[in-house]
Amino acid sequence: MKIIGIDPGLRNMGWGVIAVEGPRLRHLGNGIVHSEAGELGPRLATLYRGLCAVITRHAPDAAAVEQTFVNKDALGTLKLGQARGIALLAPAEAGLEIGEYAPNAVKKAVVGVGHAAKEQIQHMVRFMLPGVEFAGPDAADALAVAICHAHHLQGRALRIKASA
Amino acid sequence: MKIIGIDPGLRNMGWGVIAVEGPRLRHLGNGIVHSEAGELGPRLATLYRGLCAVITRHAPDAAAVEQTFVNKDALGTLKLGQARGIALLAPAEAGLEIGEYAPNAVKKAVVGVGHAAKEQIQHMVRFMLPGVEFAGPDAADALAVAICHAHHLQGRALRIKASA
Repeated sequence: MKIIGIDPGLRNMGWGVIAVEGPRLRHLGNGIVHSEAGELGPRLATLYRGLCAVITRHAPDAAAVEQTFVNKDALGTLKLGQARGIALLAPAEAGLEIGEYAPNAVKKAVVGVGHAAKEQIQHMVRFMLPGVEFAGPDAADALAVAICHAHHLQGRALRIKASA
Repeated sequence: MKIIGIDPGLRNMGWGVIAVEGPRLRHLGNGIVHSEAGELGPRLATLYRGLCAVITRHAPDAAAVEQTFVNKDALGTLKLGQARGIALLAPAEAGLEIGEYAPNAVKKAVVGVGHAAKEQIQHMVRFMLPGVEFAGPDAADALAVAICHAHHLQGRALRIKASA
């Protein structure tokens, strides 16, 4: 089973794909779809096309998107929301089920606690996906979201097994 | 020249298409793309496909989208942002230039003042587009955004004429 994780952003849309092989995870790819400052419509179209191309290339079976908002700044939240709409649309249009996870849930799944520094998360993602090199911080975050979803699915599988 | 106006919303995405014929405006169609409560990805996909179908059917030459955010509520702003991302993506993917207008600019273009009640706006839209019937309040708002963009373009045309 392949999972794509997406860390939404208007400037940098991070993505990361992992394979779940029983209890093991394997890194398949990560990157950033970038949109330059300018008119919002074409920026969103660039992000959408980039994400659709990644999904076509890696053919994931499921998707996970980070659920985050900027509490202090309505305009920042609106911008992020617009990028997040694209991050959700691309996998939905590909027919993928989408898991949404708050940043704390992602941290807890990867580091074990809900509050952790970026470096700690990246360290654990490297540990869980040996040999991975990050295209950037947003790509590392996207891999962390994918790992979070993998743990969620593995937990569900274990529960199904236990009750069978 | 045909203009599509869009009033973004996650539940109800209003749209309205008008024709600009010299100084005159003509109503061509209005409606609402609706998405039921449920998973966010499929909801956004429903809105996207609905808007793309409207754009294919009416083949507008330009688009205008209302620029609004909910100041008091970050989650509401995030939701609206996600819908707004779709409202911008659909015309951008169709290669349309997109005008963005704040609610006050729309009110000013339609009623003449920046603060006006919904009923006043709908009254003026009915006056400017004789015979129009609204599919709903969001569709009326979308027509107002389209009218605002038409005035903007007509103003530009007049300025070009005056300086020629």
